[in-house]
Amino acid sequence: MKYAVIGTGAIGGYYGGLLARNGMNVHFLLHSDHQHVKKQGLRIDSINGNFTIDVNAYAKPEDMPLCDVAIIALKTTNNHLLKVLLPQVVKHTGIVVIMQNGLAVEQVAADILPQATIIGGLCFIGSTKIGPGHIKHSDFGMVSLGHYMKDESAAGITPELELVTENFLACGIDVKPVENLSFLRWQKLVWNVPFNGLSVVLNSGTAELLRQHDSRALIKSIMLEVITAANACGQPLSASVAELMLVNTETNMQNYSPSMKVDYEHNRPLEIDAIYQSMIDRAALSGVEMHLAKMLAQQLRFLKN
Amino acid sequence: MKYAVIGTGAIGGYYGGLLARNGMNVHFLLHSDHQHVKKQGLRIDSINGNFTIDVNAYAKPEDMPLCDVAIIALKTTNNHLLKVLLPQVVKHTGIVVIMQNGLAVEQVAADILPQATIIGGLCFIGSTKIGPGHIKHSDFGMVSLGHYMKDESAAGITPELELVTENFLACGIDVKPVENLSFLRWQKLVWNVPFNGLSVVLNSGTAELLRQHDSRALIKSIMLEVITAANACGQPLSASVAELMLVNTETNMQNYSPSMKVDYEHNRPLEIDAIYQSMIDRAALSGVEMHLAKMLAQQLRFLKN
Repeated sequence: MKYAVIGTGAIGGYYGGLLARNGMNVHFLLHSDHQHVKKQGLRIDSINGNFTIDVNAYAKPEDMPLCDVAIIALKTTNNHLLKVLLPQVVKHTGIVVIMQNGLAVEQVAADILPQATIIGGLCFIGSTKIGPGHIKHSDFGMVSLGHYMKDESAAGITPELELVTENFLACGIDVKPVENLSFLRWQKLVWNVPFNGLSVVLNSGTAELLRQHDSRALIKSIMLEVITAANACGQPLSASVAELMLVNTETNMQNYSPSMKVDYEHNRPLEIDAIYQSMIDRAALSGVEMHLAKMLAQQLRFLKN
Repeated sequence: MKYAVIGTGAIGGYYGGLLARNGMNVHFLLHSDHQHVKKQGLRIDSINGNFTIDVNAYAKPEDMPLCDVAIIALKTTNNHLLKVLLPQVVKHTGIVVIMQNGLAVEQVAADILPQATIIGGLCFIGSTKIGPGHIKHSDFGMVSLGHYMKDESAAGITPELELVTENFLACGIDVKPVENLSFLRWQKLVWNVPFNGLSVVLNSGTAELLRQHDSRALIKSIMLEVITAANACGQPLSASVAELMLVNTETNMQNYSPSMKVDYEHNRPLEIDAIYQSMIDRAALSGVEMHLAKMLAQQLRFLKN
């Protein structure tokens, strides 16, 4: 089993590093960090222990072997690269694991490799790339994997999903296979949609947003709008999830800057299409107008232009 | 006819100054600028000509004569002062002209002086207080006056409205009496609600907000939400007003900082209740939930706390 890791940043570097360290045959595609990682290896500073490991590092996809599994951990704003890249790094009947934020992000890969198995991965992790080939893992680490179905139905636990799950588990990754990927994607949006956008627009971390009455009420309204949309799209998310997530975020997390705020501060592109627009468009198809999410996306696009 | 001017800032100073200069008997209540104006007079730098005029300046309402007409040009965030102030400066059967932003701002005075005539004034003017007793008038200057009716009906052109209109006209003020004050208040909100709030939240003037596609679309959505609410509240505002105002703002105005942005930059209280909350509450009574205006008000309150 050969793994390709496309996007060796906070997510791809961390999970790919664990796979490589635990004996998997892993091949990393790198861009600006290529020379550094080739010479000095990949360095992970983790709450579970630090390590540096020599890895198979490539600057060009055409130099990589054709792998059985490709882990896509690019920012979604770079997904236009996949059309050329993906067929060069994974077998056309292989497995593609999409570790990205947003809704329907798997569809890009499904369109490029119609015979491949597409698995969606949702990471609950605090990790950051703090230097070339240098990842800092500070919180959590769980990843949920689900078999992607274009019709948004529950695929169940398929053989391909079991295979990837076993590989991850064998490498010490806290992985949980799920039967219904779409449900999970919507559930994660309940958190991502309010916190990512508001942290940028209101220039604030999670703690302050939750502390003030008006922002907390707004976060909850946005969460309920996402839940309403999810239900209209056939995913029976309970409204109680909103308050649960609010309390969880208050209780279990330090003040936290969502990924979009970090991207904004570093003047990187924002994942507005993946996190907002795909969802807004999908909800509209089911007759739900997402007023609040739409307004937040418009404000983000204004700020980013 | 004696006039009292309460709030000698950009609005009260400019219109009160014109009344005084043209022979009306005007009495100004001042706070921090009292000594300066008492000694050096009120100075107006206007596109229609500059002038400085000695005025009757008072530091305390109890020192003022009981006037026939009181012009209230305080920020609405100071309206809690009116309860004590108003009965000291205007006859209980007198006329109160409310030159303030927002919806139902006349009700405060109507509750304090139930036998008085309340007139609402909407100013279309670019003016700023640039120093103690020193007003700079840079654009427009028209004021619309309408007789306030608690039931929001059209009062028509009443004798009291005619009287104030004549006084203003005689002093060279571009004044227009209107039959339906509520309609006009809603119409002005169509502009004020999007531009005031977004200029603060997105830290931008009118030109940039209109130039970008997403912010322009958001402004229009908010305008249409206000128009929907107005219609539900019995004021038949046409949806075409939205595009008309957008084009007008693009065409006739320089890049402009709405009053709320100026207040925010000077760390002054924001008129969130008058411009947003009164409208949101009124619309809810007629069954309209103003999602966008509510979100904007919540964002403003977060930023202001």
